[in-house]
Amino acid sequence: MKKVTAAVLVIGNEILSGRTQDANLHYLAQSLMKHNIRLMEARVIPDVEEEIVEAINHLRQRYDYVFTTGGIGPTHDDITAASIAKAFNRPLIRDPRAMHLLERHYGDQLTETRSRMAQMPEGSNLISNPVSTAPGFQVENVFVLAGVPSICRAMFDGLAPHLQGGDPIHSETISAFVAESVIADDLTALAGRYETLDIGSYPYFRNGKFGTALVVRGTDAKLLRQAAQELRDLIKKTGADFAEDQQVLW
Amino acid sequence: MKKVTAAVLVIGNEILSGRTQDANLHYLAQSLMKHNIRLMEARVIPDVEEEIVEAINHLRQRYDYVFTTGGIGPTHDDITAASIAKAFNRPLIRDPRAMHLLERHYGDQLTETRSRMAQMPEGSNLISNPVSTAPGFQVENVFVLAGVPSICRAMFDGLAPHLQGGDPIHSETISAFVAESVIADDLTALAGRYETLDIGSYPYFRNGKFGTALVVRGTDAKLLRQAAQELRDLIKKTGADFAEDQQVLW
Repeated sequence: MKKVTAAVLVIGNEILSGRTQDANLHYLAQSLMKHNIRLMEARVIPDVEEEIVEAINHLRQRYDYVFTTGGIGPTHDDITAASIAKAFNRPLIRDPRAMHLLERHYGDQLTETRSRMAQMPEGSNLISNPVSTAPGFQVENVFVLAGVPSICRAMFDGLAPHLQGGDPIHSETISAFVAESVIADDLTALAGRYETLDIGSYPYFRNGKFGTALVVRGTDAKLLRQAAQELRDLIKKTGADFAEDQQVLW
Repeated sequence: MKKVTAAVLVIGNEILSGRTQDANLHYLAQSLMKHNIRLMEARVIPDVEEEIVEAINHLRQRYDYVFTTGGIGPTHDDITAASIAKAFNRPLIRDPRAMHLLERHYGDQLTETRSRMAQMPEGSNLISNPVSTAPGFQVENVFVLAGVPSICRAMFDGLAPHLQGGDPIHSETISAFVAESVIADDLTALAGRYETLDIGSYPYFRNGKFGTALVVRGTDAKLLRQAAQELRDLIKKTGADFAEDQQVLW
């Protein structure tokens, strides 16, 4: 079984201070799943060089892909590019291809400050930014994306076809208005019989009723169908009503 | 200056798979800020014992407070309590006070499985759960909360008055329809003159226009007002329109 893994590193004081609610993580999590890449970890850290260097060097050795968001604009608190260069021990250069893009976009409005957005570690690949021109960049397995969600998404969507996914990950969800604790014993036994599948149990509270969504995930589609059928039988046994599955937006 | 720090550890495959969008982090970030506690880092990790142990032992040594969410229900994938016990090298016990609460709530419906929700490391303090009874718990500086948002919030709100905050953190936001790169030079100079303040610059795209929100944060209220006035002057100089600040919900 081929398993490809990823981590997301959200760089930004504004998320930690509660000023902004991050939405990039959810988008990247869903998109990676569609590409059969397993998001194994995510971190949110402040705009502090040593924190970025430490996190990048930990994550890039541990996972196949690392995606960062935030901190690549032109202002004093945009230190992601310099920090990534430091993590890879490469010089931070003003990339000529990126400069060319900025020159075409800004014309004679291309100030010294705006040129900062062409800075990246030597030997990076550019990541296209169809929204506002200033590109992201890739160094080895680290992909550096913008923090503004529309730009982050456009950058990811553009590069996604170049990612190597693993074996397709199938999933099925069975949702019913039954409290988690009612089915927990049977569920534990069932999960024990299907050790190669990932079976998650997610309680919810909806329209005044407690319910549970059971999610089975795995690469063996036949085995997964079989486990899902057993889960349905398990619910039927309790007499509980099945619920329509809803993507949970907490 | 007294600075009190915190980390949040979100435990849950469902967030990483993109099935669920986490909302607890944002709530905790905002609430901690109100209590003058600085959220320094957040992590999202899967329901895997060694990952939880490793993250807990790293974070609890580094920050004053650690808050975890998720994985304290009755099913096989709820392994947070056992993992926290392991991290602290304490036995996992069935807490008698928690058992008493569950007995009162479930009566003769209190199955063996439901009793799992009374498991916690020996010597824990209980965290009240006014929504569905099964309590969270506290071990030293680690607070273990539920993942279901209504319960997570209720648990946090109940324990928050017992947290020790640092010096009050003041903040002011100046928002204007001006591209970040137009003000970046002046901003860098200004930030250099106010090194004890945290000045962030957050670009946005709203109603078809680019804008920037400048956020000044710090414990010296007088210095902060002075810096904020300089920021306003800096915006005026560009001729840009001021915008109403909106809490950014990406």
